[in-house]
Amino acid sequence: MAKKMSVCVIGLGSMGMGAAVSCIKAGLDTYGADLNPTAQTQLKRAGAIQVADSAISFASSLDAVLLLVVNAQQVKQILFGDHALAPHLKPHTVVMISSTISADDAKEIDHQLKQYQLIMLDAPVSGGAVKAANGEITIMASGPQIAFEKLQPVHSAIASNIYNIGSEIGLGSTVKIIHQLLAGVHIAVGAEAMALAARANIPLDMMYDVVTNAAGNSWMFENRMKHVVDGDYTPKSAVDIFVKDLGLVNDTAKSLKFPIPLARTAFNMFIEASNAGFGKEDDSAVIKIFSGIELPTKKGEMS
Amino acid sequence: MAKKMSVCVIGLGSMGMGAAVSCIKAGLDTYGADLNPTAQTQLKRAGAIQVADSAISFASSLDAVLLLVVNAQQVKQILFGDHALAPHLKPHTVVMISSTISADDAKEIDHQLKQYQLIMLDAPVSGGAVKAANGEITIMASGPQIAFEKLQPVHSAIASNIYNIGSEIGLGSTVKIIHQLLAGVHIAVGAEAMALAARANIPLDMMYDVVTNAAGNSWMFENRMKHVVDGDYTPKSAVDIFVKDLGLVNDTAKSLKFPIPLARTAFNMFIEASNAGFGKEDDSAVIKIFSGIELPTKKGEMS
Repeated sequence: MAKKMSVCVIGLGSMGMGAAVSCIKAGLDTYGADLNPTAQTQLKRAGAIQVADSAISFASSLDAVLLLVVNAQQVKQILFGDHALAPHLKPHTVVMISSTISADDAKEIDHQLKQYQLIMLDAPVSGGAVKAANGEITIMASGPQIAFEKLQPVHSAIASNIYNIGSEIGLGSTVKIIHQLLAGVHIAVGAEAMALAARANIPLDMMYDVVTNAAGNSWMFENRMKHVVDGDYTPKSAVDIFVKDLGLVNDTAKSLKFPIPLARTAFNMFIEASNAGFGKEDDSAVIKIFSGIELPTKKGEMS
Repeated sequence: MAKKMSVCVIGLGSMGMGAAVSCIKAGLDTYGADLNPTAQTQLKRAGAIQVADSAISFASSLDAVLLLVVNAQQVKQILFGDHALAPHLKPHTVVMISSTISADDAKEIDHQLKQYQLIMLDAPVSGGAVKAANGEITIMASGPQIAFEKLQPVHSAIASNIYNIGSEIGLGSTVKIIHQLLAGVHIAVGAEAMALAARANIPLDMMYDVVTNAAGNSWMFENRMKHVVDGDYTPKSAVDIFVKDLGLVNDTAKSLKFPIPLARTAFNMFIEASNAGFGKEDDSAVIKIFSGIELPTKKGEMS
């Protein structure tokens, strides 16, 4: 019998926890690393071989590492900073970077990994916590064919769609960033439309019904403007996430010397929302930048 | 047996023809009016009682009139201009205005109809030619309850969703205009994202696949960016339609004194596309305002 594959998921937030549990369910030898002890306990109970603050102690057992942390700075810190993981990994271990980062950061990380004979896959993901828990995320990846091959058991455990964008590191990150351009503008324009409807005295639940049954609908409109109709800004994904991601969109466009009139406008809207104090609220709270309207409030709360 | 309802559809374009044929199929006494003799012949063959350039000759037989012409100017010309229809209609005939017009125009038309004791329903529609042919359009309407009641047989013949926004004339038009705000921005941002992908050397069919399977999707992205991937700008709906509709969005926002940062940006993009000579092409041709990229060309054509 072939030796089972060993994989460590670093970053046990909602996406990382879902991916790690999916690996356990698929029968892989699964390890986890996160600073949060609650997340450690949860993954250990789900059947992980070993869980710790850092993957260094079991690095030599691993065939693959999946990083699902917040940003490029965290990725670099974990791999190459104080208590760096990279020097402890076996040569030819595959490092799958699934955080949303710029193509330039992806290339820089790849360059550093190569110095330890490590193989990178530039592999951002999309799908959210529910799809992660069900092993149904979407992966948009670029990198050498060998990385795709070695990661095949992990990919089939965690994803329902895997796109091979090409061999060049950076393409995967760029596809994700362009996806975020669309997602961010769709949330912002949903807010703009609902705010205008409120100003025109159109009941927002009616406006929501019309749009979601017609050609003006988007995935984000349907998902996020429900929060506005319900007056519930409990963060599923926060305003500040789109300040970060539309910032990456801007960096990418600048690096390619390309105009992005709508994404730049939406970026300003999210920045304005964050500066007005709504950064930690649900990203649909970008609607709060509009004055002179009355929005629905959560049931049971006073207006 | 109750007398069958008599309805005339004025404006036998793709939406109007579909609505008229749906009325015939539902067993209503159906009349049609259009300047185009081909459309007249087509509707007569489909079973219309009578078809002509104008509805004046059979106006006294009608219980309801449905106007599906291009803009407010045409609506006013037909009802109140030279050879005006309004004076020939029986008092209490219901006039359903389904063109996309401003709330101010809707109110002005209502005011003039009242002088002939005619009842208006402010009833824009959405759905396109295919849904119209199947009697499955969406109607977003406002007006007096009696208008909804009298039109019930027509509505059940032509629509699958009917929204009663309220009794005030203008609300229906405003809901449609806000819907067009979303639709227009979604097309423009789809073009912006695909143009950026082309600049980053991402294959556009791959980018299209990723987005349509992820949270960055919109109805318009899926429908219109397919034309970009295929390099086919044969107009389903033209750039100039969105120059008109986003113009109405701007008028509406100005009248309500409300900011629309994204819709204004998208409006500029469609105006730029129209001025560059793409006004009669498919609205996805708004992508042609971006320079420094190579777009897919239609199969069989040279690049």
